[in-house]
Amino acid sequence: MIRITSATNARVKELLKLKKQSKYRQEQGVYLVEGIRMCKEAPIHEIGQIWVSDSFQEQHPEFANEFEMVRTFYEVPDEIFQRLSDTQHPQGVLCVMRQKRYEIGLILKQEHPLLMVLDHLQDPGNVGTILRAGEAAGVTGVILSAGCADIYNPKVIRSTMGSIYRMPFVYVEDLPEVLEELKRRGIHCYAAHLEGKNSYDRESYVKGSAFLIGNEGNGLSEEVAACADIRIRIPMLGQVESLNAAAAATVLMFEAARQRREEIG
Amino acid sequence: MIRITSATNARVKELLKLKKQSKYRQEQGVYLVEGIRMCKEAPIHEIGQIWVSDSFQEQHPEFANEFEMVRTFYEVPDEIFQRLSDTQHPQGVLCVMRQKRYEIGLILKQEHPLLMVLDHLQDPGNVGTILRAGEAAGVTGVILSAGCADIYNPKVIRSTMGSIYRMPFVYVEDLPEVLEELKRRGIHCYAAHLEGKNSYDRESYVKGSAFLIGNEGNGLSEEVAACADIRIRIPMLGQVESLNAAAAATVLMFEAARQRREEIG
Repeated sequence: MIRITSATNARVKELLKLKKQSKYRQEQGVYLVEGIRMCKEAPIHEIGQIWVSDSFQEQHPEFANEFEMVRTFYEVPDEIFQRLSDTQHPQGVLCVMRQKRYEIGLILKQEHPLLMVLDHLQDPGNVGTILRAGEAAGVTGVILSAGCADIYNPKVIRSTMGSIYRMPFVYVEDLPEVLEELKRRGIHCYAAHLEGKNSYDRESYVKGSAFLIGNEGNGLSEEVAACADIRIRIPMLGQVESLNAAAAATVLMFEAARQRREEIG
Repeated sequence: MIRITSATNARVKELLKLKKQSKYRQEQGVYLVEGIRMCKEAPIHEIGQIWVSDSFQEQHPEFANEFEMVRTFYEVPDEIFQRLSDTQHPQGVLCVMRQKRYEIGLILKQEHPLLMVLDHLQDPGNVGTILRAGEAAGVTGVILSAGCADIYNPKVIRSTMGSIYRMPFVYVEDLPEVLEELKRRGIHCYAAHLEGKNSYDRESYVKGSAFLIGNEGNGLSEEVAACADIRIRIPMLGQVESLNAAAAATVLMFEAARQRREEIG
């Protein structure tokens, strides 16, 4: 373990830059996870560095022992850790993780895939919630258009509650082209749309299926919606104009999960 | 319209206090809504004051005309509005609304009610999302325990997207007592619980039903869960330990909505 006491130390400055700059995280191929739970769940071979605060080290000396194989283990004073942290009340531990790259080919070639396709979904909390609830619902992969929130944004990471380690995902430049490929492979594409023809619970998602979810403010672009096999809507009572994107996605994912359980019997 | 140019004006200071202090909002019996959409949707007889920025007034002079019956209409310089606003990029209009009080008796005596019972739900975004998705799913009322987020917190208000104007809700001191009353009235209480006996989609929510949703970190307290008629679980795949409280609530509410549509045929 290396103890750093200066806020102007080069490694501290580097970490601050990783916390703030999506582009720099991408260049370095790393991202940050924070908190005891997220760090304990982290796949050990994907951990690059571990940072702890003095208080954390004092309270959890076993943590350093457990992770002693991670060679780059830093301890810093609490006030420096506070600056490195993305939360107001940090638990005092964070990991620098190696980013993962998934091949779209691998994501598509599973049997009966259940995919979420996110078109310009900008809210980090929504993206994170879709990964977390998606894993629980049996989603097999997430496809994100350029213009979606950075999945390695600390807010996304936090709201995945660990699903970031397990859910395959890929960013694609040309979403319509990818959707054509999905269709060629027999994966049905369902666009969640306020003017959808059928209620979502009237379709079957037991075979390979993909749900297209649009931007929070504007919904799916017409170009992307036009690529879908069918537009589905979630019937809404009251005077609600639309659901939050993560809520709509959750309703669809768990309907698919329900149908797939029924199918198995 | 009254134009105020000083940040130390008593009315400006009063508004800042309303923005920051839940207790003061409660004492005054008012709350704040912000943004064009939320203000346009606001029931006119519940509006106490309207505040606009100079830029907003310049760009939307029709707004002042439309709401001229609201006597207390204030215009302030943009930099003062920024301080009054709860958002980083304010649209430049907010309303001071009168709080509503719903009687629990009225909430309970509807035919086949669909109720959400929130036990120590602390995240404002979760409470707001449950109101919004709940209205869409046909929820007829929300019961909140002491210890839930303040429903008049600006973050809750924003995430309701207007459902705050329409969804009946009530805070109760003694949740177990209220749950006993629900049962006396034949309303079935379902506790969302990780160790639930039955999968949520194996129960019927067509008759009067109430879903009990627990705290984000700790779930339902044993005392409250013990009041339920039955504990239900949402089957989860992967290594997910639990769903976000709003996601779990959304799954349950839309299963109830689905069943109730089927029932009508």
